[in-house]
Amino acid sequence: MKNIGILGSTGSIGTQALDIIRENKSLFNITALSGNNNIDLLEKQALEFKPEIIAVFNKYNADVLKTKLKPYNIKVYSGLEGLIKLSEYENIDILITSVVGMIGLKPTLAAIESGKTIALANKETLVTAGNIVMEKIKKNKGSLLPVDSEHSAIFQSLTSKKKNEINKIILTASGGPFRGKNKEDLININYKDALKHPNWDMGRKISIDSSTLMNKGLEVIEAKWLFDVDVEDIEVVVHSQSIIHSMVEYIDGSVIAQLGVSDMRIPIQYALTYPDRINNNLEKLNLTDVYKLTFESPDLETFPSLSLAYRALRENGTMPSVLNASNEVLVDLFLKEKIKFYDIPNTIENILDIHKNIKNPTIDDVLYSDDWARRKVKELLKL
Amino acid sequence: MKNIGILGSTGSIGTQALDIIRENKSLFNITALSGNNNIDLLEKQALEFKPEIIAVFNKYNADVLKTKLKPYNIKVYSGLEGLIKLSEYENIDILITSVVGMIGLKPTLAAIESGKTIALANKETLVTAGNIVMEKIKKNKGSLLPVDSEHSAIFQSLTSKKKNEINKIILTASGGPFRGKNKEDLININYKDALKHPNWDMGRKISIDSSTLMNKGLEVIEAKWLFDVDVEDIEVVVHSQSIIHSMVEYIDGSVIAQLGVSDMRIPIQYALTYPDRINNNLEKLNLTDVYKLTFESPDLETFPSLSLAYRALRENGTMPSVLNASNEVLVDLFLKEKIKFYDIPNTIENILDIHKNIKNPTIDDVLYSDDWARRKVKELLKL
Repeated sequence: MKNIGILGSTGSIGTQALDIIRENKSLFNITALSGNNNIDLLEKQALEFKPEIIAVFNKYNADVLKTKLKPYNIKVYSGLEGLIKLSEYENIDILITSVVGMIGLKPTLAAIESGKTIALANKETLVTAGNIVMEKIKKNKGSLLPVDSEHSAIFQSLTSKKKNEINKIILTASGGPFRGKNKEDLININYKDALKHPNWDMGRKISIDSSTLMNKGLEVIEAKWLFDVDVEDIEVVVHSQSIIHSMVEYIDGSVIAQLGVSDMRIPIQYALTYPDRINNNLEKLNLTDVYKLTFESPDLETFPSLSLAYRALRENGTMPSVLNASNEVLVDLFLKEKIKFYDIPNTIENILDIHKNIKNPTIDDVLYSDDWARRKVKELLKL
Repeated sequence: MKNIGILGSTGSIGTQALDIIRENKSLFNITALSGNNNIDLLEKQALEFKPEIIAVFNKYNADVLKTKLKPYNIKVYSGLEGLIKLSEYENIDILITSVVGMIGLKPTLAAIESGKTIALANKETLVTAGNIVMEKIKKNKGSLLPVDSEHSAIFQSLTSKKKNEINKIILTASGGPFRGKNKEDLININYKDALKHPNWDMGRKISIDSSTLMNKGLEVIEAKWLFDVDVEDIEVVVHSQSIIHSMVEYIDGSVIAQLGVSDMRIPIQYALTYPDRINNNLEKLNLTDVYKLTFESPDLETFPSLSLAYRALRENGTMPSVLNASNEVLVDLFLKEKIKFYDIPNTIENILDIHKNIKNPTIDDVLYSDDWARRKVKELLKL
């Protein structure tokens, strides 16, 4: 029986993780849940799974929930300290970090320091502080299991643990809802068009990132840290059917790939059951039904965000943190219809140009750069 | 440094194995070579690689070679006893069994009994005596490494060694030169058309087997024994680009596949370097150049040989041996233009129908059934 905690249990990854846990009650026991605004769902989850501890970022919501859960023996904490308390909670074997945004960084670091196994679904952790996080992982006894479908695919395709046998990592990209379009087509597009993802059902922020290919850029940065490969040994290939979730090419020319239907519950489940696999009632892949898998190079002119991510990773230091923070603010502005589609990459590029990179940053440097970039975006756009 | 012996060094697999060994002289040392009719090439190989022992099946050729190699300290043996002597030779770590036909069975068994690692390229070994061979492997200390691209792919995709985690094995098939044709198109085709394989450069026997899909049928039987799976858990999918060399589907819906260019030197090399991988100068896979991978169900009406192989495997006992022997004779007759394309599956079916299956056969039963089937083919066809 594994004790599971979820940072961000009301989101897309969190609810799917609970689906798996609900189906496998003899294997998993929920000891910790956390949310922010959707406290009705969090309350429902609490009543169903009876965790020992809950963290709610929003203080007011935490108080409301505390009152409602009074009859049950569930501790409710609030704020960033609450999330950190949850991350360090002793009755957790695997912590799923599915909270979205920089808010996930400190709790994830706290969980690593307390020796937990992390099922990592918070992109920002590795994107902004990959070097620091991986060093902490090495020092502590915990491990980092990827939940993202691409990184899970690479993890599953790493049949050789010998780094010198890996030639390159091939990250597949669906190409997003605007694959095949050119710059002119996209100048005036609306966030609603960007939310129509062809293969995956995802949150709003990630859907926009998928439409700009920034999502893939952030995954390139994560892959670099997770698998300790050179930037130049990570290749992105557009594979619009999203059946091959990613691949590893070895030095002998052999390529190992992981395939499956586009269902996040497969990689989430694998992170929870690793190193074992268990049955489920999810749809199985039928390749003759799919019939055709295609592969193209990404269109870097139409989707400059991918190149910006490679640039930030090459320059490293606080550049990835700045890339991520400015992107987060810009996506939010795009969702609020305050800026246009190409304002996202154009502004990120401007900000990378003016940022004074801090090499070998501390967590404080990372957080400072994040904050600096967020302010700079609004300053540059006069918002 | 690994000492390598090759049973069948002048054939397609044997010469490609020597290409790899030539490029990696610091890793591999040839101690044994063997051939049959192509003694000019065998002599050339002997002079280049200086083995300690050579076996030539044909007695006359063995004597000729013995005379020619007199100045060198190389022992030359002949006949089946010679092949067996080679297989038991102590200075061999890995024996590549790339000899074609039933002639490979006894030498391979001898090698297993002497505790060697077998790089298996002789189909007949597992097809006709899979159960016996795998039991012998378990009893002795050696191991069996597949050389066939499909089985190597499965071997490389078996990231979990837990049998109960495997849902099914998906063997890919190019579909051969007649993919898309129907029965009527093929009634009068010639062996020369059948030799034009789209993706792989192979020997004549295997090329005809590829055109009837019997090759895939024999691979299904091999896969059953190599990977200890149920017949019904082996699926054949036609994938005409021959890029995905085979796959394993796990119970969680995750599919692991091995991909690469169609070059037998990749799986041969992996069998030699396993569990490591080494560099080579072979072409690397470029998926954006390939662009498209397709998947179809096999056309069992046009290619009944595949169903016959499944039938033989289900009935088991000496049926696979009978299937293989009658197919071998029939392919030979087809290559000599004495029979037509559909005489191959039709005659095999007749022979399976009349064969009195021996359950749990001994090696002698297997050899007897093989011989019986060969005689029966000629009897039925009045040749």
